[in-house]
Order: sequence, then C-alpha cells, then structure tokens
Amino acid sequence: MKLLRYGPEGAEKPGVLDSAGRIRDLSAVIADVAGPTIADFAWARGLDIESLPLVEGTPRFGACVAGTGKFICIGLNYADHAAESGLEVPPEPVVFMKATSAIVGPNDNVIIPRGSVATDWEVELGVVIGKKAKYVSQAEAMDHVAGYCVINDVSERDFQTKRSGQWTKGKSCDSFGPTGPWLVTRDEVADPQNLAMWLNVNGVTKQNGSTVTMVYGVAYLVSYLSQFMTLHPGDIISTGTPPGVGLGFKPPQYLKAGDVIELGIEGLGTQKQMVVADD
Amino acid sequence: MKLLRYGPEGAEKPGVLDSAGRIRDLSAVIADVAGPTIADFAWARGLDIESLPLVEGTPRFGACVAGTGKFICIGLNYADHAAESGLEVPPEPVVFMKATSAIVGPNDNVIIPRGSVATDWEVELGVVIGKKAKYVSQAEAMDHVAGYCVINDVSERDFQTKRSGQWTKGKSCDSFGPTGPWLVTRDEVADPQNLAMWLNVNGVTKQNGSTVTMVYGVAYLVSYLSQFMTLHPGDIISTGTPPGVGLGFKPPQYLKAGDVIELGIEGLGTQKQMVVADD
Repeated sequence: MKLLRYGPEGAEKPGVLDSAGRIRDLSAVIADVAGPTIADFAWARGLDIESLPLVEGTPRFGACVAGTGKFICIGLNYADHAAESGLEVPPEPVVFMKATSAIVGPNDNVIIPRGSVATDWEVELGVVIGKKAKYVSQAEAMDHVAGYCVINDVSERDFQTKRSGQWTKGKSCDSFGPTGPWLVTRDEVADPQNLAMWLNVNGVTKQNGSTVTMVYGVAYLVSYLSQFMTLHPGDIISTGTPPGVGLGFKPPQYLKAGDVIELGIEGLGTQKQMVVADD
Repeated sequence: MKLLRYGPEGAEKPGVLDSAGRIRDLSAVIADVAGPTIADFAWARGLDIESLPLVEGTPRFGACVAGTGKFICIGLNYADHAAESGLEVPPEPVVFMKATSAIVGPNDNVIIPRGSVATDWEVELGVVIGKKAKYVSQAEAMDHVAGYCVINDVSERDFQTKRSGQWTKGKSCDSFGPTGPWLVTRDEVADPQNLAMWLNVNGVTKQNGSTVTMVYGVAYLVSYLSQFMTLHPGDIISTGTPPGVGLGFKPPQYLKAGDVIELGIEGLGTQKQMVVADD
C-alpha cells in the first residue's frame, strides 16, 4: 500500500492510493497513519481499497506518518557523499537527531531560517518503524520496518558546523524535514538497497544516486540503532544522502528564496518544495 | 504549583501537591500535565487544591510532563564542568538532542545498556516550555516557560564520544532521562539562576553546585534555541550540569548495577534511581 495523509496542516486525514493512483479516504478504517496503525496492518486484511471514498481534487499532502517520536538521521552513509564533504566513511554509523518539529508535508515550503546563508538539500531514503525494536539482530530487523518514504534532510551548513559543536542546530529548523508523499509498505519494496534517487533545483539535476551505494543498509541500521535505544512505531530513520549536496560544489551552492526543489526515490514518489524566506 | 504525574508507566494521572505536600488528583480538572494544559494554567484559576481528591499511599511518579516533542540539551554550560571534561566553554551554547524515548519517571531504574562500561550521571535544571516560542527575545523568553524540573541527563561516555561522531548514541538510551518529580511552575521559582543542585551515588556526594555558575542562563537559552527552531509546549530544555560527573574523576567513576543515585535541585524536589543491568 501507499499510505498517505492529506488535508490542511494539523487536520490531515488518512488515505491510500488506489490502483489508478487516486487518493481514497481511510478515515472510516483508521484514525491516522501513525504508530498503532502501522504495526501489522491487520486493518488492511480483506480491505477493498477501490471501494473506499474517492478524494476529489488535489489536496495538500501532510507528512506520510504522524506521531513520530524520534527522527533519527545517519550521517555520511554514502561513500561518495563522505568524499565530497571531505570526510572519511566512519567505522560505524554516525547518528544524530532532527527535531520532530521540523517534519512537514512533502510539498510544503522549505523556509530559510533568519540569518541563514547555507541552507542545503539532501534526498534520503526514510525508514518508518512499525514495531518496537530493542536489541534486534539484522536478521530480525526488517520485521520492525513498516515501510519507506522520501525525505529531504534540509540542512543549514553553517548552523550545523560553525556554531559550536553537534549538528542539531543545522538540522532541526522548522520545515527542514519534508516527509512523504507516501509511506510505501515494506511488501511493495523488493530491495530497499537498490532504489534510484534524485534531486534537482530549478530543474537542474544535483543529486542522482542509488541506495545501492549506501554504506550501512536498512537492516544494519535498524539493528544497530536498537542496541542503543528502543525504536518505537512511527519513528523515522533517515538513512543518509548520496553525492550532490550544495556543500559539495566548488564553490558551494545554497538555496535562496524562490528556488524550487524536486526530489524522488524509485517507487516512493516525489516531492516538490518552494524555498521561501522567514520574514 | 507543583504538578506531577502519578501511577503505573503509561497510565499516569495528573496530580498536584497540596500545602501539606500530599498528592491531590487532578484528573477531574485536566487530562494530563502536557502541552495544552501548561500554557497559561487558566484551569488553575480559582481552583481549590485542598479540596481535590487525596491520593492514598505512595504511588510511582511518572515524568512530570507528558507529550514532550523535543528533549533538547545544552552541553558544557557550567565553566567548571567544561574544565573537568578537558574542554573550553563554547562561544555559544552546544545543543544536542536526547531521544524522548529516554524519558522516565524520577525514581525509575536507570538501565545500563548492554555493552556499556561508562554510564555516568548529570544533575540538570530542566526547563519546560509552556507556550510556543519562535524568534523570541531574551526579554520575552520567560513568558514561554511553564516551569522547571529536575533531570538526570544520564550519559554513556564511550557511546557518546568513541562510537563515531555526535553525542546522540550516548545520550538517548532507554531510561537515560529521569524527569521530575514535579513540574514546578515558574511563579514559584524566584530566580532559576540561583538554585542549589546536588547528586550523590551510594550516599557519597558527587555533584554539589548551583545554577548560579551556569554560563548561558534560562532566558538566553530559550531565546537562542528559538532562533533555530520553534519550541512547543511540553518541550524540555536540559540546561547542562555542574562539575562532579563520573568522567571528571581520576580515574573516571562509572555506574554499576546496584548503585543508587540520588539528586535534587533546591525547590524542585529529589530523584532516587536504582541502577540495573539490561539483561
């Protein structure tokens, strides 16, 4: 299934794409696409998606999962991205957090925070946890994954690295986590380590990679993180970005008001964001 | 008021201390001590706390606030703690995140994660946000604070600094965020920058400081963080620890199963945790 949340910010309803790619309303079936409803999808057994109410028009998409408790990110997880950042691939995953308040819909505006001169893009494969995971092995890990989504791990490079230690400040600004459009359930993604991914700015390709070059794969990351903390349903792991971020250009290229970012991952849909200033 | 949450984990009820220090049940007044109820305390106007139902016995305390979206921490915010860590006081606050899944009640067990050899303590003043804050000035900042609480920012030093970049791994383990017992409303704390704070392990004093030596104070931190991200009701800022953490001893002293940690801050109550292994 391609699950989604549609409607105005803060009042999203659950939906699902039908076989023709139209939005069907799931409100009569589940309260939301969130922790309790993405554990085993028991509610979906025998469900006739085509018979659900059709949603008219082209509503806004919200983030494809609600109630995210942790927005965990992996740094430098593509060897060639590490190289463009001038850094080595780390001996074990680099883990940091984005504020969950940074999460927005896939096509919402990306807001350049006041004082920013280095707001950058990062297309990333998002992994949404479906079942609680603690000390799970790699073999067990995928059972804890509900599905996948596109994430733009928007990053302010100066806030991230030039404002006194730790990356949090550059990763957590409002609107820095467009998520969706869909939570694509795990059964629909044959191999999460072989998905094309791309990002362009104003129509010019910047990132054009594949999860095949990811250093630490999805099963590894779920298992690894679960050694440190319990992963809960609705938690998101953003698994790192391939080459082509603005920081990697010589000279660096950063976002400015009026830019349009488009990005996508094979089978997971696309995002399109207008960049705006924070007045 | 000294607000609190009491009862079994996951089923806490809201409560408040009466003038004799007994717990009174607030369930008939508010659903929980959480974002919507800590904005302006309108529900408390004219409330006769002494007439609320008395809670019998000595129930468990949960974390004193529910629904925390961000658990933001400030590093090296006491000059003498920075010195014991062998680090300079940073030119602006060091910001990192703890996983909200690390939050537990003030007297719950602290669980040493598997593979840990360097689990450490940190008594900290917690600031609980009551009203949304974005780009607020220092002069406005305190209006956005609901109140204060005690936090033990439990930290695994090897996970924090020896396991590939960023502190998240050493800060986010389950049980690493005892919070409470009380959310003491701002009106009851005359000066948050002049509170004695202490921590002992097995009855031996380890930390004995005061928020008077905090480098970046509460108003500064609320204003500062709000330049980077919106602070929402229920968000917690843990403001750093004074000297005396295990890491600072020569040789370092770390927690082991069976240890008992006791800590407190003037006017904000005390915590007591048993340290256990994660079997």
